[in-house]
Amino acid sequence: MDRVAQKGWWRKDLLGIQDLSREEIEIILDTAESFKEISTREIKKVPTLRGKTIVHLFYEPSTRTRTSFEIAAKRLSADAVNISVSTSSVVKGETLLDTARNLQAMELDVLVIRHAAAGTPHMLAEVLPASVINAGDGFREHPTQALLDMLTVRERRGTLEGLRLTIVGDIAHSRVARSNIYGFRTMGAKVRVVGPATMIPVGVEELGVEVFYDLKEGIREADVIMMLRIQKERLQGAFFPSEREYARFFGLTLEALKEARPDVLIMHPGPMNRGVEIAPEVADGPYSVILDQVTNGVAVRMAVLYLLTGGARIGVAH
Amino acid sequence: MDRVAQKGWWRKDLLGIQDLSREEIEIILDTAESFKEISTREIKKVPTLRGKTIVHLFYEPSTRTRTSFEIAAKRLSADAVNISVSTSSVVKGETLLDTARNLQAMELDVLVIRHAAAGTPHMLAEVLPASVINAGDGFREHPTQALLDMLTVRERRGTLEGLRLTIVGDIAHSRVARSNIYGFRTMGAKVRVVGPATMIPVGVEELGVEVFYDLKEGIREADVIMMLRIQKERLQGAFFPSEREYARFFGLTLEALKEARPDVLIMHPGPMNRGVEIAPEVADGPYSVILDQVTNGVAVRMAVLYLLTGGARIGVAH
Amino acid sequence: MDRVAQKGWWRKDLLGIQDLSREEIEIILDTAESFKEISTREIKKVPTLRGKTIVHLFYEPSTRTRTSFEIAAKRLSADAVNISVSTSSVVKGETLLDTARNLQAMELDVLVIRHAAAGTPHMLAEVLPASVINAGDGFREHPTQALLDMLTVRERRGTLEGLRLTIVGDIAHSRVARSNIYGFRTMGAKVRVVGPATMIPVGVEELGVEVFYDLKEGIREADVIMMLRIQKERLQGAFFPSEREYARFFGLTLEALKEARPDVLIMHPGPMNRGVEIAPEVADGPYSVILDQVTNGVAVRMAVLYLLTGGARIGVAH
Repeated sequence: MDRVAQKGWWRKDLLGIQDLSREEIEIILDTAESFKEISTREIKKVPTLRGKTIVHLFYEPSTRTRTSFEIAAKRLSADAVNISVSTSSVVKGETLLDTARNLQAMELDVLVIRHAAAGTPHMLAEVLPASVINAGDGFREHPTQALLDMLTVRERRGTLEGLRLTIVGDIAHSRVARSNIYGFRTMGAKVRVVGPATMIPVGVEELGVEVFYDLKEGIREADVIMMLRIQKERLQGAFFPSEREYARFFGLTLEALKEARPDVLIMHPGPMNRGVEIAPEVADGPYSVILDQVTNGVAVRMAVLYLLTGGARIGVAH
Repeated sequence: MDRVAQKGWWRKDLLGIQDLSREEIEIILDTAESFKEISTREIKKVPTLRGKTIVHLFYEPSTRTRTSFEIAAKRLSADAVNISVSTSSVVKGETLLDTARNLQAMELDVLVIRHAAAGTPHMLAEVLPASVINAGDGFREHPTQALLDMLTVRERRGTLEGLRLTIVGDIAHSRVARSNIYGFRTMGAKVRVVGPATMIPVGVEELGVEVFYDLKEGIREADVIMMLRIQKERLQGAFFPSEREYARFFGLTLEALKEARPDVLIMHPGPMNRGVEIAPEVADGPYSVILDQVTNGVAVRMAVLYLLTGGARIGVAH
Repeated sequence: MDRVAQKGWWRKDLLGIQDLSREEIEIILDTAESFKEISTREIKKVPTLRGKTIVHLFYEPSTRTRTSFEIAAKRLSADAVNISVSTSSVVKGETLLDTARNLQAMELDVLVIRHAAAGTPHMLAEVLPASVINAGDGFREHPTQALLDMLTVRERRGTLEGLRLTIVGDIAHSRVARSNIYGFRTMGAKVRVVGPATMIPVGVEELGVEVFYDLKEGIREADVIMMLRIQKERLQGAFFPSEREYARFFGLTLEALKEARPDVLIMHPGPMNRGVEIAPEVADGPYSVILDQVTNGVAVRMAVLYLLTGGARIGVAH
């Protein structure tokens, strides 16, 4: 890990992609790449984070992200503790800050937090000596998702520089979209967003993206298409007339895909609504890298845990 | 473990007892027997499955089975991750297959699954490179339960050959009954089933069992009596008039037990409804091997995890 | 750990403080003190309890206590399994005793149990060969909480002998109060309780405490003030008119605090209702040792796990 150490990662927390420089993103992606091999070994485990305490504090349910973090922690030999909302003393009325301070008092090293309120991880990061990882804060950011997405594209294309990414769906309510806009833009990609007008946030152009309201136009010549999961409760009138209408206008089908480049990469953060935002033939088709995203999720989270706990700074070998 | 290796276990998955040959069942029971000793050590842990990732994906609640699998995994030093329905993204509408493929993409080695739909583990086993263990699929099979039951009887009687097993209760809705019918029959035992007519599945005789509708007749000369847990919601008219009536006709009491052989073994897969299908004096009596079943459950699950992950094939020592 | 071994800890279980002698409490506190250092290391883990199986069986939700126990177990390298009520087969009607016997049959070493019924841990301890730790039984005892409280005060004052402790709140419904009354009294402290008449149990004087119904009088000259968490559902008429009234009469404010000694220690077992039983300025003020309590909780639980599993008796090094 010498190169990483020299590049000098110094952040305590991973709160969002917006703050990260291109060099920082590259450090994480490089580190993740070097960690990928561990998960392919017969014995998928290294002692790197032995004796570190990592708490996953999830105020929103999640299989995928929590499992990915937990597997990442265990493959690094860290001690992982899960706390989910329903069993939490939050219901007893304790403030989030008190909960976090208590965990800190138990000498935790990393707090991985998902919370419906944007900014929660930032608030905790200021107060806690432990590293804080944002695993999703409201509609704001989901940085490890964007990092795994960037790693997936970089693996296939070598670079993100100059690529055209189109993100399709409910941009307004998507932390995945936000984090990816920041990340891909920082890495030199061009980003377009596509969706119904009610799902495009006002002023999104200021993030440096082009806006389209028509799927085929939006994905024309795209190198990468990222379909967002659509919340079915938003397809009941207020944002869009119906699920069927949504699928017809914004669902990615083989037919629509003809507009994109022949070697386009298809991404989806999951969980997928097959037949709504993405047709099964597309999800399972040759250009889909959806399962690569999941594989890279573990590697990215291993890398982030490693970097934040001082792996690079103090030169812990793995 | 040389003998096992030579015998050549080759299956990737454990989906049911129906498919297993007598030799395969014997391999598992022999391996389990050799693992029992580990749980009696001062340090109950071997490094055999270090660095393996085992996911317990339970779509039905379970203390007993999930805990038994988790303890088995930990005693073999595997990394165990629990996913239970209520916190799962299933609620978000992802298909089971997508959930499983995602776990596979995280490089899991073994998926232990319990699901209300019969055949679910089989479907996943076809698609996933990982080993799949059926921890209960609907009313179909619960193979590790039958294996631990067979181990328990074999320990006490030396063989299952020629023994008379009587299974009592709601045969129609019991995966435990089904798996044990397959297993004990394959091992050369004679199997009877006893229950009210509404709880005996049509055509059960084709599985090679004798049917009785009277408890005392059914357990006459039995070497082993296996009481099934009765679902209380089935004792409200549709299947049986009342709990009290059920206990009177099909509950195993000391009085009823007089019909069985004097050295009969009493089994129950748990959790027990004391005073309904089994009288406390019987459950706690001298011929009860109910707690042996639980002890053997850990050993059987260690053996299955070991065999499926290639222990025997690749000769990993433990 | 030689000194501990010589002093001769011999109990199998930790059920309550009421049974403990002064010497026994001192053994636990001394052991905890020696374990505190582990949690401050770069690698916060020792192999002391490797291969031990510890089950946390919680019939009441808890973040704090369960997490503290789980972290303690993991820092000692034990295998920790969590079972919480909602996913438990208790809902299927199995008796608690059967659940516990089943866990025992899986060869568990320590059962940590929280249950709404007072006396539950005692009942289990009589039946199980495994060590039982009471993590809270109804309104009766919560011994590890009192031990961490005593450790926290002893650290600051050197001794509990002769100190004046005032416990404020709903004494009648507090296992924390009960355990602390026993503990501080055994250690030679003077204990006062303060609360509204409806929350002071009849006959509490027989425990050797002085009763006050006025906050300022009760905390006069106190060395230690322990505020209890008030259950908001008890502030709706039956026990007290309203939350606001409670805060006014029994909430610890800077104003009220003037009556106490200038170097008074402020404690709270958490989770806190800020602005109800304790003002934020007091909770976060210079004399608050509330977070020290949390830190000491991990150390005390490590010590208890160590002592009960025979650390001192058999001389396992750590």
